[in-house]
Amino acid sequence: MLSKKMEVADLFAFYGQLLTDKQKDILTLYCLDDYSLGEIADDLGISRQGVHDAVKRASKTLIGYEEKLGLMNKFNMNTSLLNDINTRMVELAECLNDQTVEDTSFKNKVQETITIVIEDIENMIE
Amino acid sequence: MLSKKMEVADLFAFYGQLLTDKQKDILTLYCLDDYSLGEIADDLGISRQGVHDAVKRASKTLIGYEEKLGLMNKFNMNTSLLNDINTRMVELAECLNDQTVEDTSFKNKVQETITIVIEDIENMIE
Repeated sequence: MLSKKMEVADLFAFYGQLLTDKQKDILTLYCLDDYSLGEIADDLGISRQGVHDAVKRASKTLIGYEEKLGLMNKFNMNTSLLNDINTRMVELAECLNDQTVEDTSFKNKVQETITIVIEDIENMIE
Repeated sequence: MLSKKMEVADLFAFYGQLLTDKQKDILTLYCLDDYSLGEIADDLGISRQGVHDAVKRASKTLIGYEEKLGLMNKFNMNTSLLNDINTRMVELAECLNDQTVEDTSFKNKVQETITIVIEDIENMIE
């Protein structure tokens, strides 16, 4: 249930601007402020069932956007590859500054990094 | 006029799956197959004015998606930075394989590349 809410929160952060103002208000309370359905109902002066239906409908809309566009998945995959490249850069910097590393090992490390980064970039751009 | 058509074509490639089937059919002919409005009208058995209005409406919808989400702009900027990183990797590989480059120059080049790539990644992830 919580993971479902987190999934909707992620989709809301990504596609939320395509929802109506009313849907945005309800999902802001539900996902960002972590209100319960009852608390949202009290806050907006509508029934708990009305809030439940609105959340369900807005979630379905957001899920539909991702099913059709797949941009959040793509974005998340790219972010993961970018973090990987970042880690490799930090490792390379450490290797560069480590006086005990021999030149040949260092050059092998540079070559390996170049190969993997170019591969990661191909995967991101494709 | 052509640049406007290209802009719509880019947006269609990005957000096209959110349009109705009819809108997708018309924009496929207009943007991808480069049909004129008259040719689309003949092909689909509707008036030229009808095609004109449909293209205008669908384009407005696509522009609205980008205005609200800005994802195409973000992706384009990231692609440009990724191409930049790719170029730097190729340059570093050339430097690595160039026997005439001194170790100190090579290490400076590695350091410079690391700094810029980490900066580029920050800009992409932010």
